[in-house]
Amino acid sequence: MCISNLILVNPQCSIDELAYSRASGADVILDQIKHRDSLRQSIKDCSLVIATSARSRSLPWPDLRPRQMAQKIWSLNDQAEVALIFGPEHSGLSNEELALCHFNVTIPTNPNFSSLNVASAIQVLCYEIYQAAGNASPIKAAESNECLVTSEDLEGYFAHLEQVLVKTQFLDTDKPGLLMKRLRRLYQRIDLSKTEVNILRGILSSVEKYKS
Amino acid sequence: MCISNLILVNPQCSIDELAYSRASGADVILDQIKHRDSLRQSIKDCSLVIATSARSRSLPWPDLRPRQMAQKIWSLNDQAEVALIFGPEHSGLSNEELALCHFNVTIPTNPNFSSLNVASAIQVLCYEIYQAAGNASPIKAAESNECLVTSEDLEGYFAHLEQVLVKTQFLDTDKPGLLMKRLRRLYQRIDLSKTEVNILRGILSSVEKYKS
Repeated sequence: MCISNLILVNPQCSIDELAYSRASGADVILDQIKHRDSLRQSIKDCSLVIATSARSRSLPWPDLRPRQMAQKIWSLNDQAEVALIFGPEHSGLSNEELALCHFNVTIPTNPNFSSLNVASAIQVLCYEIYQAAGNASPIKAAESNECLVTSEDLEGYFAHLEQVLVKTQFLDTDKPGLLMKRLRRLYQRIDLSKTEVNILRGILSSVEKYKS
Repeated sequence: MCISNLILVNPQCSIDELAYSRASGADVILDQIKHRDSLRQSIKDCSLVIATSARSRSLPWPDLRPRQMAQKIWSLNDQAEVALIFGPEHSGLSNEELALCHFNVTIPTNPNFSSLNVASAIQVLCYEIYQAAGNASPIKAAESNECLVTSEDLEGYFAHLEQVLVKTQFLDTDKPGLLMKRLRRLYQRIDLSKTEVNILRGILSSVEKYKS
């Protein structure tokens, strides 16, 4: 489906002969696999990070259907990097991993069998992305000439925000609740530009200095 | 994806423990598997028979994209049975098997890797069928109150037609060429009603009697 950039985060197996035989000729994808130690590190340059999970969560994440997801991906400008995150076959993504993602995509299924195996889920989503190529009209939620933030920019902002909220005692580190997750959910779905994040961080800095 | 009727034609393996373990709880589908000796026998009650093949053929079959296929399926009336035919993993469908099908569906892919493995192809097509449920407006190509022909009706017609064409010496059994395949391709893609096939067979009978 013309997607070739595969990153493995802490894989539990090696890319051996069996892997090459199952790739049915797509050796080039295996040859270029990148290994990473952390999910956060893997996605730091991405402007759109999409989780794939069928499990319901206490704090539901902004949900996309596969076709909407594909439209969203193609509406970004050409420089934007996009990550599609798949969890391990049996456990799926943890809540912590999901929190790093901007959206969650759910594949509609028979409700009695809502969890596809990971190969099937990858096939369906890559298929939708390939089908939508060239069919999406570019929409940039952020101002049109500006670069979208990367995941690393956003993480910097969230860390800064959390710091400030602790200082202002809005966030109680003993009882953090879902506050930071709710804020992540909010900011991650609005296609912030770098300029906008700079403004938000400027506000945080101004709050830090305020302390009268 | 809410599809449960699985027929195996001359399977080379048995439905054993491994099959149940891989079904991940969908035991009911395996419990109800039907075994058949011939493809023709398996599809005799079907009004729409769709092949899945990425291989190009000397006589191209009417081709549908997965989304068109799903629309077509849902545009049939509720009584119509539909078969989706998948060939063996390594060889795919033979030309003879393809000739029994009304349409061929091709999944758009990277042209360098056009043949998906069979599980992936099944997943994509069942996904498209499930997505399109309830989204298609009923269109009946045949007159609206009439039943669509089944595959068995059509095979009866083709056998009759071939007989008559041999009699009229239009078809040379020593050099049949692609004639019957071309005629199949023509009639199989127009959603004939039972009444229409009766008319066509009436014409054939009239030709047989004609012989002055």
